[in-house]
Amino acid sequence: MTTDTTPVTVVGLGLMGQALASTFLRNGHPTTVWNRTAAKATELVAQGARLADSPADAVAASPLVVVCVSNYDAVHELLDPLGDALDGRVLVNLTSGTSEAARQTAEWVTQRGGYLDGAIMAVPPAIGTAEATVFYSGPQAVFDRHESTLRVLGAGTTYLGADYGLSSLHDVALLGAMWGVANSFLQGAALVGTAGVPASTFASIAGPLIGTVNGWLPDLARQIDKGDYAARDATIDTHLGTMEHLVRESESVGVNADLPRLVKALAGRAVADGHGGSDYAAMIEQFRKPSGSRP
Amino acid sequence: MTTDTTPVTVVGLGLMGQALASTFLRNGHPTTVWNRTAAKATELVAQGARLADSPADAVAASPLVVVCVSNYDAVHELLDPLGDALDGRVLVNLTSGTSEAARQTAEWVTQRGGYLDGAIMAVPPAIGTAEATVFYSGPQAVFDRHESTLRVLGAGTTYLGADYGLSSLHDVALLGAMWGVANSFLQGAALVGTAGVPASTFASIAGPLIGTVNGWLPDLARQIDKGDYAARDATIDTHLGTMEHLVRESESVGVNADLPRLVKALAGRAVADGHGGSDYAAMIEQFRKPSGSRP
Repeated sequence: MTTDTTPVTVVGLGLMGQALASTFLRNGHPTTVWNRTAAKATELVAQGARLADSPADAVAASPLVVVCVSNYDAVHELLDPLGDALDGRVLVNLTSGTSEAARQTAEWVTQRGGYLDGAIMAVPPAIGTAEATVFYSGPQAVFDRHESTLRVLGAGTTYLGADYGLSSLHDVALLGAMWGVANSFLQGAALVGTAGVPASTFASIAGPLIGTVNGWLPDLARQIDKGDYAARDATIDTHLGTMEHLVRESESVGVNADLPRLVKALAGRAVADGHGGSDYAAMIEQFRKPSGSRP
Repeated sequence: MTTDTTPVTVVGLGLMGQALASTFLRNGHPTTVWNRTAAKATELVAQGARLADSPADAVAASPLVVVCVSNYDAVHELLDPLGDALDGRVLVNLTSGTSEAARQTAEWVTQRGGYLDGAIMAVPPAIGTAEATVFYSGPQAVFDRHESTLRVLGAGTTYLGADYGLSSLHDVALLGAMWGVANSFLQGAALVGTAGVPASTFASIAGPLIGTVNGWLPDLARQIDKGDYAARDATIDTHLGTMEHLVRESESVGVNADLPRLVKALAGRAVADGHGGSDYAAMIEQFRKPSGSRP
């Protein structure tokens, strides 16, 4: 329980919206809620929330309005009819979408009130706990004004910067890293699984290696930021040679080879671009440009 | 320096072969070397190695023969003419190749002598240090006999099991995990880089997340081993929805979208197979089967 008792409105009561509203209530914030289907508010009302009559009523009720709906089309359906109701309010949009959509929404909202775009890096049950990270981007002053209220949503409340697009970008970039780790583990588990090795056995070997590779990233990042692609221990040519083994092994034992083929295709393009003798850091240039043709 | 002074032969003196021979010498093992181009042996001879006249001479010199050449074709070019010279020798093949090639080579060699297939998970300068991991597979008794000699090559000397293919499988499976972590980091760095965020800043955010995801793998592996795909916090349907954001964001800001598209395509196939309501663990089934068509 914080001493901050800023009234809060939560619009959108899917599983995530319900978790947000419930967490505000638990932390002593007078909480107004609205949802297209009012039935979703029943439990929150029992916990002490006020159910607004309309989106305009919901927005009028609190200086801080948190929106968490299924997509940006739903955000605009909600906001467009509101007009001046947003005057003097701060809208915190936790709906998932692209950075471009976030910037466009910011342009519209900031003609009326304050705006923060956010991204929740947690599942609903983690909201309000040490495990929840929530990103925010937009004007620092707006974030500062409401930080203590927003911080009840998770210990990992993180302000990323003024560019409204930063939350969306970090959201998908980190989810991509999550799927990247999971998928390459699954690829490996499938490979060794053909020899009867349990996934758990592979996890005990892969875990320390992934930890080691993770420890290399700050150094890799420094090379990228400097644009210094001087090879250290292995060139992209060397990597490409062993990637060929990964592809052949995957094909040979009959597991899915799509991911290995893409890994190899990307490195092959770096070599075609003249980076065969460069450090793996030079691969960033392949990721920075649109794919010409699919692998 | 160990007390074990088993004579060792190293065949193949590329950067890795030289590092292997040099490490055996440094640890007091009488070391015989052979390379197609004898000039590569000059430095090792200065360190005390004996340069053999021929592959047959090299193999005859030591009970333990380590082969590290560029590929399995080169291995067979070397071995095929040797015939009975291998009698009573143990051949340790550290050449990179597929598990199938390892098993075939084992079948040939074991008609004459002992065989271990191995894989070096280290760059040449790391050989002989705490950082070097070397995998071995083949009969436990053969590994045990030479373990103390092989262990000088790296603290991470690991016996994987009797199946000769295990070293090759683990080699590519772990390299795949390495590229998977690196590439998904690069994808994310490219994404946030479009908003001017330095790769180093992204590394400081991505590192802890990758550590967290790494910590989930033992649990994911247990689900896979049990074949228990009951959804925990998010279903594959939910993942697929957010994967679409990753694809759209990548396309929208103009970075490479091949990896995001593949991530999404694989999950889409899991949904098509009826696993939309399953835990991400069910994705293993996509990795286990050959790709029908490329994404």
